[in-house]
Amino acid sequence: MKQRIVIIGSGNVATALAVAAASKCDIVQVYSRTLTHAQQLAQRVHCPLATNRLDRLEKDADIYIIAVSDDAIAQIVSQVPDNGALWIHTSGSKPIGLFSGKRKCFGVMWPMQSFSKQLSVDFVEVPLFIEASSPEAHKALHRFASTLSHTVMEADSHRRARLHLASVFACNFSNHMYTLAQEVLDEDGLPFDVLKPLIRTTVEKLQNLSPTESQTGPAARADHQVMERQASMLTGDKQAIYRLISQSIMDRHHTDK
Amino acid sequence: MKQRIVIIGSGNVATALAVAAASKCDIVQVYSRTLTHAQQLAQRVHCPLATNRLDRLEKDADIYIIAVSDDAIAQIVSQVPDNGALWIHTSGSKPIGLFSGKRKCFGVMWPMQSFSKQLSVDFVEVPLFIEASSPEAHKALHRFASTLSHTVMEADSHRRARLHLASVFACNFSNHMYTLAQEVLDEDGLPFDVLKPLIRTTVEKLQNLSPTESQTGPAARADHQVMERQASMLTGDKQAIYRLISQSIMDRHHTDK
Repeated sequence: MKQRIVIIGSGNVATALAVAAASKCDIVQVYSRTLTHAQQLAQRVHCPLATNRLDRLEKDADIYIIAVSDDAIAQIVSQVPDNGALWIHTSGSKPIGLFSGKRKCFGVMWPMQSFSKQLSVDFVEVPLFIEASSPEAHKALHRFASTLSHTVMEADSHRRARLHLASVFACNFSNHMYTLAQEVLDEDGLPFDVLKPLIRTTVEKLQNLSPTESQTGPAARADHQVMERQASMLTGDKQAIYRLISQSIMDRHHTDK
Repeated sequence: MKQRIVIIGSGNVATALAVAAASKCDIVQVYSRTLTHAQQLAQRVHCPLATNRLDRLEKDADIYIIAVSDDAIAQIVSQVPDNGALWIHTSGSKPIGLFSGKRKCFGVMWPMQSFSKQLSVDFVEVPLFIEASSPEAHKALHRFASTLSHTVMEADSHRRARLHLASVFACNFSNHMYTLAQEVLDEDGLPFDVLKPLIRTTVEKLQNLSPTESQTGPAARADHQVMERQASMLTGDKQAIYRLISQSIMDRHHTDK
């Protein structure tokens, strides 16, 4: 029998989850503060009910997914009485304890992905990190998560925090390296587009090699002559970042330098 | 009429170029210091002649491509007398002046890509940066480059140096961010694979947005609470890099901070 799901929220995470769940579960209702947003998402996932009133939430669903901004989760939990179903939130940074004393059966399901309107994502590829209040809650949550994604792993608050920190390096900081590269090119009127094939290759290499194994460049081969020349072409924070990251690479690839 | 090409070298760049050129030009000979390497590459591109002797190079080709390690280029130029054909090297960091006084018609064609045995690359997507000794040399080189790639641009030594520096940020340094992310996960026994969907999304966003526009994360929204918590989870160079890059992002996204 299909699990009956209520989606609370209509933003990027709520939408991605609802769309992914629509073909595997019964989405019985969509809630949003803004009725038209609830209606739009409901229509998109062929769900018969949309509401902007928390007191009108369906009572007999199996799972209630709170996919709203971090600061709004606690208020929703407080405003709706427990009905014995499984309640989960989808935040990477909020603890499971947020439900304590307010629900009997609860959990967290954090999709580690940056969802946006511009880019559709294949949800089965999105790693889902789950945490549950009891073996029963875990069983229901794991069953649900496994219908959505190939990768379901356990992660408590501590592990979610490490994963979030790792994603800051891997995504936010790598993206800032693209920004700095663009600034270097802008000074000569060269277009950023020329770097894209090389950027794609760098990422594709990770399919077969660890990032340490696939590291190349002047620092990886301790080419001090090239590093000095390149550092001297830079000023300000770009120069400081160039020197610090080059040293960090050398420390890992040339322990004698 | 097809351009007649001699390939000098049998490494990753020589191989990628020979394979790309094979369907558009006549590759008349492959040279390598190691005869079996010359023979293997010649066979792969259906070329009748392979040699390991510079004094046996064909005399009547249109273009001689020196795709060997940077430090070996000058020696090859010195050892082979000029025959009036177009001679080019493929190095990003060596100047065109290396041919001066030794050839009449010469140039540089730098493919901005990291070629490897593990990963085949669609050569038409590889940006080629060219520089030539004369309008005639430029015409022949541009014609050749345009048969290989959609993106052919002019770049003298100065611009090649800027492009190389930009690629260090965009590729070598972004890859080091993956290494640091892996170290953060390793401490908790979490697999690096879970980051791959997010890494792919970060790169796919660049199709529609500039890196500055697509920047997300705690620093981009000046979330000092999260940044302090994350920095305190780190030690050593990871903490220094976290602080420096976060500040660099804030400087660009929150000029009042």
